[in-house]
Amino acid sequence: MPPDAPKDTDEAGADANRRLYLDDLVLGQRFLSAAHALDAAQIQAFAGQYDPQPFHVSDEAARGTLFGGLAASGWHTAAITMRLLVESVPIAGGIIGVGGEIAWPRPTRPGDLLRVESEIVEIVPSKSRPDRGMVTLRSQTRNQRGEILQTLTARLVVPRRRPL
Amino acid sequence: MPPDAPKDTDEAGADANRRLYLDDLVLGQRFLSAAHALDAAQIQAFAGQYDPQPFHVSDEAARGTLFGGLAASGWHTAAITMRLLVESVPIAGGIIGVGGEIAWPRPTRPGDLLRVESEIVEIVPSKSRPDRGMVTLRSQTRNQRGEILQTLTARLVVPRRRPL
Repeated sequence: MPPDAPKDTDEAGADANRRLYLDDLVLGQRFLSAAHALDAAQIQAFAGQYDPQPFHVSDEAARGTLFGGLAASGWHTAAITMRLLVESVPIAGGIIGVGGEIAWPRPTRPGDLLRVESEIVEIVPSKSRPDRGMVTLRSQTRNQRGEILQTLTARLVVPRRRPL
Repeated sequence: MPPDAPKDTDEAGADANRRLYLDDLVLGQRFLSAAHALDAAQIQAFAGQYDPQPFHVSDEAARGTLFGGLAASGWHTAAITMRLLVESVPIAGGIIGVGGEIAWPRPTRPGDLLRVESEIVEIVPSKSRPDRGMVTLRSQTRNQRGEILQTLTARLVVPRRRPL
Protein backbone atom coordinates (compact mmCIF):
# COMPACT_ATOMS: atom_id res chain seq x y z
CA MET A 1 0.00 0.00 0.00
CA PRO A 2 1.51 3.37 -0.93
CA PRO A 3 2.20 5.60 2.07
CA ASP A 4 -0.39 8.15 0.99
CA ALA A 5 -3.25 5.69 0.53
CA PRO A 6 -6.32 6.28 2.67
CA LYS A 7 -6.31 4.23 5.84
CA ASP A 8 -9.41 2.35 6.82
CA THR A 9 -8.44 1.82 10.42
CA ASP A 10 -9.10 4.56 12.91
CA GLU A 11 -5.80 4.93 14.68
CA ALA A 12 -7.50 6.84 17.48
CA GLY A 13 -9.54 3.73 18.18
CA ALA A 14 -6.36 1.76 18.76
CA ASP A 15 -5.03 4.38 21.16
CA ALA A 16 -5.98 3.44 24.69
CA ASN A 17 -5.61 7.07 25.74
CA ARG A 18 -7.69 8.28 22.79
CA ARG A 19 -5.42 11.23 22.22
CA LEU A 20 -6.69 13.46 19.43
CA TYR A 21 -4.53 14.81 16.61
CA LEU A 22 -5.43 17.72 14.34
CA ASP A 23 -6.78 15.19 11.83
CA ASP A 24 -9.18 13.79 14.43
CA LEU A 25 -10.78 17.12 15.36
CA VAL A 26 -13.93 18.48 13.74
CA LEU A 27 -15.61 21.87 13.94
CA GLY A 28 -18.29 21.90 16.60
CA GLN A 29 -16.72 19.03 18.55
CA ARG A 30 -17.44 19.52 22.25
CA PHE A 31 -15.82 18.46 25.51
CA LEU A 32 -17.34 18.66 28.98
CA SER A 33 -15.11 18.69 32.04
CA ALA A 34 -15.59 17.28 35.51
CA ALA A 35 -16.57 19.70 38.27
CA HIS A 36 -14.30 21.59 40.65
CA ALA A 37 -15.69 22.68 44.01
CA LEU A 38 -14.26 26.02 45.08
CA ASP A 39 -14.18 27.31 48.63
CA ALA A 40 -13.01 30.45 50.41
CA ALA A 41 -9.74 28.86 51.55
CA GLN A 42 -8.71 28.06 47.95
CA ILE A 43 -9.63 31.57 46.82
CA GLN A 44 -7.60 33.15 49.62
CA ALA A 45 -4.59 30.85 49.09
CA PHE A 46 -4.34 31.65 45.37
CA ALA A 47 -4.90 35.36 45.96
CA GLY A 48 -2.36 35.51 48.76
CA GLN A 49 0.28 34.28 46.36
CA TYR A 50 -0.72 35.87 43.05
CA ASP A 51 -3.41 38.53 43.46
CA PRO A 52 -3.34 39.92 47.01
CA GLN A 53 -6.11 42.48 46.69
CA PRO A 54 -8.62 42.98 49.54
CA PHE A 55 -11.64 41.62 47.62
CA HIS A 56 -9.77 38.35 46.92
CA VAL A 57 -8.43 37.74 50.43
CA SER A 58 -11.07 39.00 52.86
CA ASP A 59 -14.85 38.71 52.72
CA GLU A 60 -15.15 41.64 55.10
CA ALA A 61 -12.83 43.88 53.08
CA ALA A 62 -14.64 42.85 49.88
CA ARG A 63 -17.99 44.13 51.13
CA GLY A 64 -17.06 47.75 50.49
CA THR A 65 -15.88 47.08 46.93
CA LEU A 66 -17.44 46.51 43.50
CA PHE A 67 -17.50 42.78 44.33
CA GLY A 68 -19.65 43.13 47.46
CA GLY A 69 -18.11 39.99 48.97
CA LEU A 70 -15.19 37.59 48.55
CA ALA A 71 -14.50 36.79 44.89
CA ALA A 72 -11.81 34.68 43.26
CA SER A 73 -9.08 36.30 41.20
CA GLY A 74 -9.90 35.98 37.52
CA TRP A 75 -6.53 34.28 37.13
CA HIS A 76 -7.60 31.71 39.69
CA THR A 77 -10.72 30.99 37.61
CA ALA A 78 -8.41 30.73 34.59
CA ALA A 79 -6.05 28.34 36.40
CA ILE A 80 -8.88 26.07 37.56
CA THR A 81 -10.27 26.16 34.03
CA MET A 82 -6.90 25.01 32.70
CA ARG A 83 -6.86 22.09 35.14
CA LEU A 84 -10.34 21.08 33.98
CA LEU A 85 -9.28 21.44 30.32
CA VAL A 86 -6.20 19.25 30.81
CA GLU A 87 -8.50 16.56 32.18
CA SER A 88 -11.24 16.91 29.57
CA VAL A 89 -9.70 17.83 26.20
CA PRO A 90 -7.40 14.92 25.21
CA ILE A 91 -5.26 16.58 22.54
CA ALA A 92 -2.16 14.68 21.44
CA GLY A 93 0.95 16.36 22.77
CA GLY A 94 -1.07 18.22 25.39
CA ILE A 95 -2.84 21.56 25.49
CA ILE A 96 -0.30 24.10 24.27
CA GLY A 97 -1.75 27.58 23.93
CA VAL A 98 -0.09 30.48 22.19
CA GLY A 99 -2.68 32.95 23.43
CA GLY A 100 -6.30 33.94 23.34
CA GLU A 101 -9.06 36.18 24.59
CA ILE A 102 -10.46 35.91 28.08
CA ALA A 103 -13.43 37.55 29.79
CA TRP A 104 -14.92 37.34 33.26
CA PRO A 105 -18.56 38.44 32.98
CA ARG A 106 -19.36 37.52 36.60
CA PRO A 107 -17.28 36.97 39.77
CA THR A 108 -16.39 33.44 40.88
CA ARG A 109 -17.53 32.94 44.49
CA PRO A 110 -16.84 30.63 47.43
CA GLY A 111 -19.11 27.60 47.11
CA ASP A 112 -19.17 27.70 43.31
CA LEU A 113 -18.95 24.39 41.47
CA LEU A 114 -17.02 25.04 38.27
CA ARG A 115 -17.41 23.08 35.05
CA VAL A 116 -15.91 23.85 31.63
CA GLU A 117 -17.56 23.17 28.31
CA SER A 118 -15.33 23.56 25.26
CA GLU A 119 -15.95 23.61 21.54
CA ILE A 120 -13.63 23.44 18.55
CA VAL A 121 -14.40 26.57 16.51
CA GLU A 122 -11.49 26.69 14.04
CA ILE A 123 -8.97 24.22 12.60
CA VAL A 124 -6.13 25.56 10.45
CA PRO A 125 -3.38 23.20 9.23
CA SER A 126 -0.05 24.99 9.07
CA LYS A 127 1.24 25.75 5.58
CA SER A 128 4.86 26.02 6.66
CA ARG A 129 4.89 23.21 9.26
CA PRO A 130 3.22 20.07 7.87
CA ASP A 131 3.44 18.32 11.24
CA ARG A 132 1.02 20.66 13.02
CA GLY A 133 -1.79 23.17 12.86
CA MET A 134 -3.65 25.76 14.93
CA VAL A 135 -6.94 24.99 16.61
CA THR A 136 -9.19 27.56 18.25
CA LEU A 137 -10.96 26.23 21.31
CA ARG A 138 -13.77 28.22 22.91
CA SER A 139 -14.32 27.34 26.56
CA GLN A 140 -17.04 28.50 28.91
CA THR A 141 -16.58 28.09 32.64
CA ARG A 142 -19.92 27.95 34.45
CA ASN A 143 -21.05 27.65 38.03
CA GLN A 144 -23.68 25.26 39.42
CA ARG A 145 -26.45 27.64 38.30
CA GLY A 146 -25.20 27.62 34.71
CA GLU A 147 -23.99 31.22 34.98
CA ILE A 148 -20.95 31.97 32.84
CA LEU A 149 -17.96 32.95 34.99
CA GLN A 150 -15.35 32.97 32.25
CA THR A 151 -15.12 32.68 28.50
CA LEU A 152 -11.79 31.75 26.96
CA THR A 153 -11.07 31.57 23.25
CA ALA A 154 -7.64 29.95 23.02
CA ARG A 155 -5.38 29.25 20.07
CA LEU A 156 -3.68 25.89 20.46
CA VAL A 157 -0.81 24.22 18.61
CA VAL A 158 -1.95 20.70 17.71
CA PRO A 159 0.17 17.99 16.03
CA ARG A 160 -0.96 16.19 12.89
CA ARG A 161 -1.30 12.44 12.84
CA ARG A 162 0.03 12.05 9.29
CA PRO A 163 2.28 14.83 8.01
CA LEU A 164 1.45 15.47 4.35
CA MET B 1 -19.32 75.91 48.68
CA PRO B 2 -21.86 73.98 46.63
CA PRO B 3 -21.13 70.26 46.43
CA ASP B 4 -20.55 70.40 42.66
CA ALA B 5 -18.05 73.26 42.74
CA PRO B 6 -14.61 72.53 41.30
CA LYS B 7 -12.07 71.56 43.91
CA ASP B 8 -8.70 73.22 43.88
CA THR B 9 -6.97 70.71 46.05
CA ASP B 10 -5.46 67.64 44.45
CA GLU B 11 -6.84 64.84 46.54
CA ALA B 12 -4.17 62.50 45.20
CA GLY B 13 -1.56 64.72 46.76
CA ALA B 14 -3.14 64.18 50.12
CA ASP B 15 -3.30 60.43 49.60
CA ALA B 16 -0.22 58.84 51.10
CA ASN B 17 -0.74 55.76 48.94
CA ARG B 18 -0.97 57.84 45.75
CA ARG B 19 -3.84 55.76 44.40
CA LEU B 20 -4.81 56.77 40.87
CA TYR B 21 -8.38 57.42 39.76
CA LEU B 22 -9.60 57.50 36.16
CA ASP B 23 -9.15 61.28 36.21
CA ASP B 24 -5.48 60.90 37.13
CA LEU B 25 -4.56 58.56 34.28
CA VAL B 26 -3.21 59.73 30.92
CA LEU B 27 -2.62 57.91 27.66
CA GLY B 28 0.91 56.62 27.41
CA GLN B 29 1.41 56.58 31.19
CA ARG B 30 3.79 53.75 32.07
CA PHE B 31 4.43 51.57 35.12
CA LEU B 32 7.41 49.30 35.70
CA SER B 33 7.19 46.45 38.19
CA ALA B 34 9.75 44.92 40.49
CA ALA B 35 11.34 41.62 39.41
CA HIS B 36 10.23 38.10 40.24
CA ALA B 37 12.83 35.30 40.19
CA LEU B 38 11.31 32.06 38.95
CA ASP B 39 12.76 28.63 39.61
CA ALA B 40 11.87 25.05 38.67
CA ALA B 41 10.24 24.33 42.03
CA GLN B 42 7.75 27.20 41.60
CA ILE B 43 6.99 26.08 38.03
CA GLN B 44 6.36 22.51 39.15
CA ALA B 45 4.26 23.54 42.17
CA PHE B 46 1.91 25.71 40.08
CA ALA B 47 1.68 23.11 37.32
CA GLY B 48 1.04 20.27 39.76
CA GLN B 49 -2.03 22.11 40.98
CA TYR B 50 -3.36 23.81 37.84
CA ASP B 51 -1.65 22.56 34.67
CA PRO B 52 -0.24 19.07 35.26
CA GLN B 53 1.16 18.43 31.80
CA PRO B 54 4.56 16.69 31.39
CA PHE B 55 6.37 19.76 29.98
CA HIS B 56 5.35 21.82 33.03
CA VAL B 57 6.23 19.28 35.72
CA SER B 58 9.32 17.41 34.49
CA ASP B 59 12.39 18.68 32.67
CA GLU B 60 13.11 15.18 31.41
CA ALA B 61 9.57 14.66 30.08
CA ALA B 62 9.65 18.12 28.51
CA ARG B 63 12.69 17.28 26.37
CA GLY B 64 10.65 15.25 23.91
CA THR B 65 8.01 17.97 23.47
CA LEU B 66 7.66 21.26 21.58
CA PHE B 67 9.13 22.99 24.64
CA GLY B 68 12.42 21.05 24.64
CA GLY B 69 12.77 21.50 28.41
CA LEU B 70 10.81 22.52 31.49
CA ALA B 71 8.57 25.53 30.83
CA ALA B 72 6.09 27.35 33.07
CA SER B 73 2.37 27.11 32.39
CA GLY B 74 1.24 30.24 30.57
CA TRP B 75 -1.28 30.69 33.41
CA HIS B 76 1.61 30.72 35.87
CA THR B 77 3.25 33.52 33.87
CA ALA B 78 -0.13 35.29 33.94
CA ALA B 79 -0.48 34.82 37.71
CA ILE B 80 3.02 36.14 38.41
CA THR B 81 2.30 39.06 36.08
CA MET B 82 -0.82 39.84 38.09
CA ARG B 83 1.18 39.87 41.32
CA LEU B 84 3.68 42.28 39.76
CA LEU B 85 0.82 44.46 38.44
CA VAL B 86 -0.84 44.65 41.85
CA GLU B 87 2.45 45.93 43.24
CA SER B 88 3.24 48.37 40.41
CA VAL B 89 -0.02 49.85 39.07
CA PRO B 90 -1.63 51.79 41.96
CA ILE B 91 -5.17 52.14 40.69
CA ALA B 92 -7.77 53.33 43.19
CA GLY B 93 -10.06 50.48 44.16
CA GLY B 94 -7.56 47.92 42.88
CA ILE B 95 -6.96 46.23 39.56
CA ILE B 96 -10.32 44.86 38.48
CA GLY B 97 -10.23 43.32 35.03
CA VAL B 98 -13.25 42.36 32.99
CA GLY B 99 -11.17 40.58 30.37
CA GLY B 100 -8.52 40.99 27.74
CA GLU B 101 -6.22 39.41 25.21
CA ILE B 102 -3.20 37.36 26.22
CA ALA B 103 -0.34 35.87 24.22
CA TRP B 104 2.73 33.85 25.13
CA PRO B 105 5.25 34.34 22.32
CA ARG B 106 8.02 32.45 24.15
CA PRO B 107 8.11 29.93 27.03
CA THR B 108 8.91 31.09 30.56
CA ARG B 109 11.84 29.04 31.91
CA PRO B 110 13.41 28.15 35.27
CA GLY B 111 15.92 30.87 36.16
CA ASP B 112 13.95 33.62 34.40
CA LEU B 113 13.69 36.98 36.14
CA LEU B 114 10.28 38.42 35.27
CA ARG B 115 9.45 42.11 35.08
CA VAL B 116 6.27 43.73 33.81
CA GLU B 117 6.05 47.04 31.99
CA SER B 118 2.57 48.45 31.53
CA GLU B 119 1.13 51.32 29.53
CA ILE B 120 -2.27 53.01 29.55
CA VAL B 121 -3.55 52.75 25.96
CA GLU B 122 -7.21 53.73 26.30
CA ILE B 123 -9.36 55.65 28.79
CA VAL B 124 -13.13 55.65 28.32
CA PRO B 125 -15.38 57.29 30.95
CA SER B 126 -18.64 55.40 31.30
CA LYS B 127 -21.71 57.14 29.88
CA SER B 128 -24.17 55.21 32.02
CA ARG B 129 -22.10 55.07 35.25
CA PRO B 130 -20.64 58.50 36.09
CA ASP B 131 -18.62 57.05 38.96
CA ARG B 132 -16.32 54.93 36.77
CA GLY B 133 -14.78 54.22 33.39
CA MET B 134 -12.88 51.58 31.44
CA VAL B 135 -9.13 51.69 31.04
CA THR B 136 -7.13 49.48 28.69
CA LEU B 137 -3.75 48.53 30.10
CA ARG B 138 -1.17 46.85 27.88
CA SER B 139 1.42 44.87 29.85
CA GLN B 140 4.54 43.13 28.61
CA THR B 141 6.20 40.53 30.79
CA ARG B 142 9.89 40.17 29.94
CA ASN B 143 12.75 38.03 31.17
CA GLN B 144 16.25 39.19 32.15
CA ARG B 145 17.29 39.28 28.46
CA GLY B 146 14.41 41.59 27.57
CA GLU B 147 12.61 38.82 25.67
CA ILE B 148 8.84 39.10 25.77
CA LEU B 149 7.25 36.13 27.53
CA GLN B 150 3.71 37.45 27.67
CA THR B 151 1.65 40.32 26.37
CA LEU B 152 -1.61 41.15 28.09
CA THR B 153 -4.07 43.79 26.97
CA ALA B 154 -6.54 44.06 29.83
CA ARG B 155 -9.73 46.07 30.22
CA LEU B 156 -10.03 47.44 33.75
CA VAL B 157 -12.86 49.08 35.65
CA VAL B 158 -11.49 52.25 37.24
CA PRO B 159 -13.37 54.61 39.59
CA ARG B 160 -13.61 58.33 38.95
CA ARG B 161 -12.39 60.81 41.50
CA ARG B 162 -15.25 63.25 40.97
CA PRO B 163 -18.45 61.88 39.49
CA LEU B 164 -19.84 64.38 36.97
